[in-house]
Amino acid sequence: MSEQIVIVGFGPVAARLVDELLPALRAGQVGLTVIGQETEAAYNRVLVADLGVGRTTPEALALADAAALVADGVDVRLGVKVRRVDRARQSVILSDGTSAHYDRLVFATGSRPVIPNLTGLNPDPAAPVLPPGVTALRDLRDAEVLRRAVAGRKRVVVLGGGVLGLETALAAAEEGATVTVVHNGPHPLGRNIDRGGGAVLAASLRSCGVRVAGNARSTGVEHNGPDGGFSALLLDDGSAIDGDLLVLSCGVRPRIELAEGCGLSTGAGILVDHRLRAHHEPHIFAIGDCAEVRCPDPACTECRTARGPSGLVGPGWRQAEWLAEYLVLLSEGSVEDADSLPPLPQEKPGVIVLKARGMNMAVAGDNSAEPWDEEVLTAGAVNGRPRLQIAQWADPEHGRYVKMTTRGGVLEGLVSVGMPRTAGELVQLFERGAELPADRSLLLRLDGPDQLASAGASNDPESTVCRCAGVSGGKIADAAAGGCSTVAEVSAATRAGTGCGGCHEDIRGLIEKHFQGAAA
Amino acid sequence: MSEQIVIVGFGPVAARLVDELLPALRAGQVGLTVIGQETEAAYNRVLVADLGVGRTTPEALALADAAALVADGVDVRLGVKVRRVDRARQSVILSDGTSAHYDRLVFATGSRPVIPNLTGLNPDPAAPVLPPGVTALRDLRDAEVLRRAVAGRKRVVVLGGGVLGLETALAAAEEGATVTVVHNGPHPLGRNIDRGGGAVLAASLRSCGVRVAGNARSTGVEHNGPDGGFSALLLDDGSAIDGDLLVLSCGVRPRIELAEGCGLSTGAGILVDHRLRAHHEPHIFAIGDCAEVRCPDPACTECRTARGPSGLVGPGWRQAEWLAEYLVLLSEGSVEDADSLPPLPQEKPGVIVLKARGMNMAVAGDNSAEPWDEEVLTAGAVNGRPRLQIAQWADPEHGRYVKMTTRGGVLEGLVSVGMPRTAGELVQLFERGAELPADRSLLLRLDGPDQLASAGASNDPESTVCRCAGVSGGKIADAAAGGCSTVAEVSAATRAGTGCGGCHEDIRGLIEKHFQGAAA
Repeated sequence: MSEQIVIVGFGPVAARLVDELLPALRAGQVGLTVIGQETEAAYNRVLVADLGVGRTTPEALALADAAALVADGVDVRLGVKVRRVDRARQSVILSDGTSAHYDRLVFATGSRPVIPNLTGLNPDPAAPVLPPGVTALRDLRDAEVLRRAVAGRKRVVVLGGGVLGLETALAAAEEGATVTVVHNGPHPLGRNIDRGGGAVLAASLRSCGVRVAGNARSTGVEHNGPDGGFSALLLDDGSAIDGDLLVLSCGVRPRIELAEGCGLSTGAGILVDHRLRAHHEPHIFAIGDCAEVRCPDPACTECRTARGPSGLVGPGWRQAEWLAEYLVLLSEGSVEDADSLPPLPQEKPGVIVLKARGMNMAVAGDNSAEPWDEEVLTAGAVNGRPRLQIAQWADPEHGRYVKMTTRGGVLEGLVSVGMPRTAGELVQLFERGAELPADRSLLLRLDGPDQLASAGASNDPESTVCRCAGVSGGKIADAAAGGCSTVAEVSAATRAGTGCGGCHEDIRGLIEKHFQGAAA
Repeated sequence: MSEQIVIVGFGPVAARLVDELLPALRAGQVGLTVIGQETEAAYNRVLVADLGVGRTTPEALALADAAALVADGVDVRLGVKVRRVDRARQSVILSDGTSAHYDRLVFATGSRPVIPNLTGLNPDPAAPVLPPGVTALRDLRDAEVLRRAVAGRKRVVVLGGGVLGLETALAAAEEGATVTVVHNGPHPLGRNIDRGGGAVLAASLRSCGVRVAGNARSTGVEHNGPDGGFSALLLDDGSAIDGDLLVLSCGVRPRIELAEGCGLSTGAGILVDHRLRAHHEPHIFAIGDCAEVRCPDPACTECRTARGPSGLVGPGWRQAEWLAEYLVLLSEGSVEDADSLPPLPQEKPGVIVLKARGMNMAVAGDNSAEPWDEEVLTAGAVNGRPRLQIAQWADPEHGRYVKMTTRGGVLEGLVSVGMPRTAGELVQLFERGAELPADRSLLLRLDGPDQLASAGASNDPESTVCRCAGVSGGKIADAAAGGCSTVAEVSAATRAGTGCGGCHEDIRGLIEKHFQGAAA
């Protein structure tokens, strides 16, 4: 009899795992059950804000087709919750009274928004009750709330200065809403960006029409709006920021109650080893936002420096792909054979990119050191390891800022605001671990008025265009050569552009380039 | 009878005044007496350090030929001091018992080195007694002391981080001495340079072989050397910096005792109005380092922002030239006619340039504001006056730093370290008050590996090459076209290069360019 695999959760990462297991399912090698709490099959949650401002459609967000999966033999259960996991009996018990046996259980429960502790909100993470006009912008219903506010050119208050909050704010402002971002640090993006970059970022947001209220500690929400809806965010200095819709963008927290309930080890997320296996439980795995890779070996240097779940979709997809392969090997019978599969390589630190009309920002790695911080720069420079070096261009009046933090000429951190071509090149140098030119100022020329040297970088077919799905420019060009003439077609063929959507312009450019070349 | 002009002091500024008065003297219109305390006629004091490291000769420093002046009818009195001025009788009484009548008396007494208050030194400014091995590097004898130390590859300690101290240190280190600069600030050059530029400057000095001891408060000198000579500079933390020669470079103070003794108003220097005339005394004038232009009118905005004597030779020369013209007009009889001469325009803020092998620095104007100092940047931005803008490139590991402080696109301050072509262009933009390109990073390209755009700037014949004498590149090229084939010949013909000597390389380049053009 085939090995029964049960997946708890049906988000983007679970959908990828299902996809990758389909061949083995069709071959009768495994059985597959996927349990989703929402009534919809997996959709691209990263684009909920885009949907909310009317830039995309629910159809375009879909990442799985439940009917097709059922036809393929997947046991798809939607709109149902897992009540508990019976590890002794290897069975999950569902809210509709049914249950499902598993040989391998995969947690892909993702994360849920953090609901801040504000007067007027119920912060119970398991059962948040948000008054009308307050949304955490997590699912399709939240998107509809935002869509109505933007279409009505209402005042939107975004609480939180993280990259998702800023993307939402920029998109909503561009589409006509009056938007204020409220955050509690000296500048948005917190410790992901340095002081100089943060200052230029905040100014750029303002010049994009987004109001930015920094160093603001919110204490409560006032709901004197129609139907008792949100009317203002209250701050601890007694002031208030009026608005019609409050979007909570205060980060996410892994959904681990179910795993805790059945006695699995958890930290920030469900603790798994380098094979994504729960500690001391060979039948249970976790992937995506709910998983925290931290192996039980205290000597593992990789885990000592690991940072917990990234909150990005790309790493989760890579985990899903790896785990599918591993589960198929396990289903073939031998744990030894399966364990000979090389574990997933450690994810590189993420790159945070923010793009909008008149706004471009990229940050990655550690950017806290300033050029004059002798102590910080020499820290860790032992046994012949070179010290950190910083090169920095600051022109805040023109909205431009670059910081390159290198060790031995290779980027360990980067900040770029208002210099899109420089940013693109730096991100590629960062991801490749390539050495920068000794004269770092050469990189600034990419955004000079002549823009001469920029073509070289983006022409490299090896360079990654879609970082979420890990698709190179060459593969996208091949898809265009193979007949794909729209972003959607390229996405269907290569998966490029199915994540955060930040590369859609680049994909469009590559398609155009192909057809120009074909016409010439 | 001709009008009697007496000049007290025979330094570079007095020599220029004598030069300019020679035509009127030869015409019998004025009589001229010049009184020098040293036995030598005027020589270029700015190059005493160059002489001390063996880079020039006493002959090359000469700015006046006493015998030729005597032949022209100038009453030259050398090696003699003025004891006092009898304003009632319009007469100066000299140390040799003689006296001289004046119709117009000009103070050109210059300045003297500040002797710091250190145990082991006699700080009496009027009669400093320095132990062997300690010099203030002011006259030809001091140069000889430095020359012996450098030739013997001795250890030289320079006390003071001003531009003259740094020039001396760089030159002495280049010529083989072991040099330490001791200064009491966080970086050399004090408030003339900002924090970032100061840090890169200090590192550049070190890479030029100059040791830099900052934040050092000296308390005394130890003299355990041969013949009771200098052996170490003692610091307040109990440490000591060993050396064979101590060069005091702690600034200068105007020599004003004589003026005070005869009841003239003094501030930092002898107070003069915009016609260089002592307050309430139409017969007495002051020029150069001893003069402080600050008119008696409390409403004069120019004087309210004046900064006292600059310590640079260029402004003194311009004063000498103007005053010669004014005195000649006075000697023709009518004060009204003389007063119709437009007063000397206010000096622009000075540019400080430091050049050595592997070292290039230029600073000018106010550089204290940082790109993120909102308050400083908006201060003074009232009534439609634009706010300050800062653009900054920092690459300390490669010894490069640029800060451009602009208002309305025009430089109000600049710092450049390690970027000679950028520095040259910025200095010219600063002096012309010309607008910078909106993309300030274009200026960095001048020092890029390709060095493409640099030719344009230095080709402008209007641009000033010798800032001390105010000579343009076009005039120097004309001199070369007229047959001058050495820097000395160009200097004799145009006065370019007779001041600080910082432009000698540029003059050499212009001569070479002329002869290459002629050959082609």
